[in-house]
Amino acid sequence: MDLNTITDPSFIKNLSHDELLNLSEDIRSFLIEKLSVTGGHIGPNLGVVELTVSLHRIFNSPDDKFIWDVGHQAYVHKILTGRANQFDTLRQFKGLCGFPKRIESEHDVWETGHSSTSLSAAMGMAAARDIKKDKNHVIPIIGDGALTGGMALEALNHIGHEKTDMIVILNDNEMSIAPNVGALHTILGKLRTAGKYNKAKDELEYLLKKIPAVGGKLAATAERVKDSLKYLLVSGIFFEELGFTYLGPIDGHNYNDLQETLLNAKKMKGPVLVHVLTKKGKGFRPAEEDKIGTWHGTGPYKMEDGAFFKSSNTAPSWSGLVAETVRKLAREDERIVAITPAMPVGSKLEGFASEFPERMFDVGIAEQHATTMAAGLATQGMKPFLAIYSTFLQRAYDQVVHDICRQNLNVFIGIDRSGLVGADGETHQGVFDIAFLRHLPNMVIMMPKDENEGQHMVKTAIEYNDGPIALRYPRGNGLGVPMDAELQVIPIGSWEVLREGTDAAILTFGTTIPMALEAADRLAKQGIQVEVINARFIKPLDVHMLHQLVKRDLPLFTVEEAVLQGGFGSSILEFLQDHDYTGVSVSRMGIPDHFIEHGNVDELLNEIHITADELVVRIQNKMNKTDKAGTHAL
Amino acid sequence: MDLNTITDPSFIKNLSHDELLNLSEDIRSFLIEKLSVTGGHIGPNLGVVELTVSLHRIFNSPDDKFIWDVGHQAYVHKILTGRANQFDTLRQFKGLCGFPKRIESEHDVWETGHSSTSLSAAMGMAAARDIKKDKNHVIPIIGDGALTGGMALEALNHIGHEKTDMIVILNDNEMSIAPNVGALHTILGKLRTAGKYNKAKDELEYLLKKIPAVGGKLAATAERVKDSLKYLLVSGIFFEELGFTYLGPIDGHNYNDLQETLLNAKKMKGPVLVHVLTKKGKGFRPAEEDKIGTWHGTGPYKMEDGAFFKSSNTAPSWSGLVAETVRKLAREDERIVAITPAMPVGSKLEGFASEFPERMFDVGIAEQHATTMAAGLATQGMKPFLAIYSTFLQRAYDQVVHDICRQNLNVFIGIDRSGLVGADGETHQGVFDIAFLRHLPNMVIMMPKDENEGQHMVKTAIEYNDGPIALRYPRGNGLGVPMDAELQVIPIGSWEVLREGTDAAILTFGTTIPMALEAADRLAKQGIQVEVINARFIKPLDVHMLHQLVKRDLPLFTVEEAVLQGGFGSSILEFLQDHDYTGVSVSRMGIPDHFIEHGNVDELLNEIHITADELVVRIQNKMNKTDKAGTHAL
Repeated sequence: MDLNTITDPSFIKNLSHDELLNLSEDIRSFLIEKLSVTGGHIGPNLGVVELTVSLHRIFNSPDDKFIWDVGHQAYVHKILTGRANQFDTLRQFKGLCGFPKRIESEHDVWETGHSSTSLSAAMGMAAARDIKKDKNHVIPIIGDGALTGGMALEALNHIGHEKTDMIVILNDNEMSIAPNVGALHTILGKLRTAGKYNKAKDELEYLLKKIPAVGGKLAATAERVKDSLKYLLVSGIFFEELGFTYLGPIDGHNYNDLQETLLNAKKMKGPVLVHVLTKKGKGFRPAEEDKIGTWHGTGPYKMEDGAFFKSSNTAPSWSGLVAETVRKLAREDERIVAITPAMPVGSKLEGFASEFPERMFDVGIAEQHATTMAAGLATQGMKPFLAIYSTFLQRAYDQVVHDICRQNLNVFIGIDRSGLVGADGETHQGVFDIAFLRHLPNMVIMMPKDENEGQHMVKTAIEYNDGPIALRYPRGNGLGVPMDAELQVIPIGSWEVLREGTDAAILTFGTTIPMALEAADRLAKQGIQVEVINARFIKPLDVHMLHQLVKRDLPLFTVEEAVLQGGFGSSILEFLQDHDYTGVSVSRMGIPDHFIEHGNVDELLNEIHITADELVVRIQNKMNKTDKAGTHAL
Repeated sequence: MDLNTITDPSFIKNLSHDELLNLSEDIRSFLIEKLSVTGGHIGPNLGVVELTVSLHRIFNSPDDKFIWDVGHQAYVHKILTGRANQFDTLRQFKGLCGFPKRIESEHDVWETGHSSTSLSAAMGMAAARDIKKDKNHVIPIIGDGALTGGMALEALNHIGHEKTDMIVILNDNEMSIAPNVGALHTILGKLRTAGKYNKAKDELEYLLKKIPAVGGKLAATAERVKDSLKYLLVSGIFFEELGFTYLGPIDGHNYNDLQETLLNAKKMKGPVLVHVLTKKGKGFRPAEEDKIGTWHGTGPYKMEDGAFFKSSNTAPSWSGLVAETVRKLAREDERIVAITPAMPVGSKLEGFASEFPERMFDVGIAEQHATTMAAGLATQGMKPFLAIYSTFLQRAYDQVVHDICRQNLNVFIGIDRSGLVGADGETHQGVFDIAFLRHLPNMVIMMPKDENEGQHMVKTAIEYNDGPIALRYPRGNGLGVPMDAELQVIPIGSWEVLREGTDAAILTFGTTIPMALEAADRLAKQGIQVEVINARFIKPLDVHMLHQLVKRDLPLFTVEEAVLQGGFGSSILEFLQDHDYTGVSVSRMGIPDHFIEHGNVDELLNEIHITADELVVRIQNKMNKTDKAGTHAL
């Protein structure tokens, strides 16, 4: 069928089995074709075609609430709820969001991006339903990877206790983004082969029947034992212990199994967990054969063979640069240990892992544990490198405060994907980390101007033994600059003058440095000489240089790809106030007080006026005013 | 024995059973006596006397690492490691800390205060040991309440997966602070009566023997079934499934049982969980009989009968005022639901709970789940009141960002214990919340000057339907002001002039308002007229009033009982910069860039110069400079 004609999912209820099969085929072809152009989360979505169709067949969205954990697997849901015709704009500026988005559809009842929130959200929705005495179903769909996130486990514990009516779909594809770790994974592995359990159960019942009939006390005992066994031998004991009725595992690509089990679950009281086995990338061979997560989310590819288009950028990726420099240093420094919360591939730690398997820990989706485990390592004289995306470090804020900073431990936090990340959008932008780390005692925060400085900063972080130190680096690739052979330690809190000037000074760091240099170039042509400073330490500030700048009476322009409130620019205002420098002109450029949606980074920066153009205009305006007033102070 | 003579725990290894019993008795008498004067966490410590003595008998601290989860149960450990003579200063300014403190003793290897960190820390320490090929034991001691915290569950999952050598002591007293909730609690309840399980196991073995001898296939089946049963019938299946060897439950007040089991655990490979049953308050009848957590942590009491000394402050407690006002409004407004992460007593929600049991959720120690569940409720038109201590809200930072603020949901966050909390010290000071919430889009933050304004702010929060709104309130009691009968809605972002003045303006909120008024009074006597402004909205600012203040050319003094960096004062600097007001003099008073230890709040404020005296001096100095310069700008 033409998927573009779908306006709502009600048509699914009347389809025959053959029509369902045709629908899955159409959806798969559609996804493989569309995503070959736009990129996107192809693997997870190909895995949930039958599951999503079945959910919309058995339940009534939006009265019944589908809550997609993480949310990158909601494309099929988007197609079935009337959004197929927007897929050409997927994850593009002002286009279809790659995650559920309430403003897009009444069928998107919960927005996500971060993992493991669905069960808590579902508990809230189910509690609201029960208080209002409504009758709808609440159906969180959570992957086996997301289940290891602490908040999902907190929610399981609470839901099981409250015995709330809810149907949890455990979408078990044996892989979250990278292959899964954790004891829960082992439990699921056992359940996947639950046939053995069921067989043992049958055999046991047969054997129990063989026990000679006995009277009196022994008969009662036998009954009690049978009850115990019935309880203990049921599959999914882990979930049953937590108060859930466990159903499964079932084949997530078989419409009959799905329908039968979902109808069964729909009739049950209390919390039910339906264990559905799916295959990521189902129906697209390159994705089906993926073992490490390459096809989890991708850029454009060739439909025919799944070949990726080569990036024109040959500079090293930031993640790779940092991880490989850590690896190099680990050869000499036995204190170095690397920790990732489920992102060994994204953080490019495969090399480190293969060279130092005993010093590498992938802890699963568990940012809190990862962070405090790093603190524990540091108490024993180790030097943990905690590689974590900026947006996910938000999950471990308290662990950074309470465990790392308060104990002033030597943890090296590699804040990957700092700044705007682009297509993943507002849930993933790494724009808060400066504001949530800068106010913490003992914290050092730095960001390099290019990958050469980046490698020196890795060295600096490893050599720093006075407490926590964070290195921010952006998503994507470096600038392709020449690399020094020898690693150097950069003095903590030291900035660098990249270009001298006498009329104004731009203070910036990381990704916005090229923009500052460009603005300075353009202004130079107009006779305005702008100093550009690489404020590579966000904390502590280079107070010596700041005092000098004030003495030179330069108007200051701060630029950051991070939120303005409480950000780097504010720290300059605080410095000036601390020293009673009341007459200094400062202009701050950064991310305003709203969430930044998806789009490519340049489009987004343009939208929020973090551009060389804007810098040029601001500095020109300032110069004009200064000329008129004859002084820098207004 | 005289506990003051203990210098290290080695003496315990040579004690006879009778001497051990005497030692416990001496420790209990000591604790009951000392804490009757200083107050402290009497209940938890009386519960772990035999456990702590046994740990120090069987293991060798500090080579073997004891990691006390939460840490308020480490008093016995402090006594045994040579700190008995400091108990007169317990939890007092510059005195003995109420939690483990590395600077106090080499036996304190990990500092805590917040719950559920011990397993992650232990995993870090054990990993370091294994990398260094050391042989020491790592022994986290965690309560049954703390076990429900998400990060503890993340750690269990990882430790079970890695099969790391570790001895987890589960100190199960059936009560964390308030009675426990959660499915895990039910699991532990079943294990407590494990006698039944063991009996069933014995009976089963007897029955299996009765199965007629059969040959061939059936014999193999019988063996396989027996293996399954052996596995499934073992107690502690939940922990066994997660990869732990489960030992217990054992009587935590019986030295023989403790010794036998700990020696057994010491010999095992891989992670072991020892389930120890203890009784909070053991040996002190008032504490033993406590059912709701009154004797968890207390102020001074009469040793004879456990009577508490009456507080001279008869004003309502802040927690009570807020909770009771929510309760009153809930009678008219059916949208209102209350959520607490394990603090129904601390947050004074008992009244709400008894009146609206179906609209009250105690989710256990699970701040992340509590916060996102509130978001889920809000999506369904409910108005959740999330009561959470400032310091524990740190655990839910990402949930506030990603689930509440990003979706702009109507969640009312009651930030209890905001500002300095006193005796609990640096792990509990509620001083970061402004800095970690102010930069979040859509967030409204307010703090009342007194309990009358507090009740109006509760009304304001309930009536506000444009997104999240947070009400900060301090630990302790209100000011005893008269209360309006009618609740009013305060316009969002509106400040209030408490006292007019022409020479300077103090902008402050909440607990520091009396200090500002006192400073203004004293300065008035010197002829300096200071305006005092109740900046009750920390976000959004009252920009109208700020523009007026700038027009009037008043030097501004901001005061906050919160961190300076990224705080309220910084938001004033940002406002001035945003509007290019470069000539305005601002002086910010607040908490400097280091962690604030324990002590009473006045002592602490004095130590960090947040006082009326300091305000008077700063304003005097400013006036003197201004007089000399003839203008407010320096």
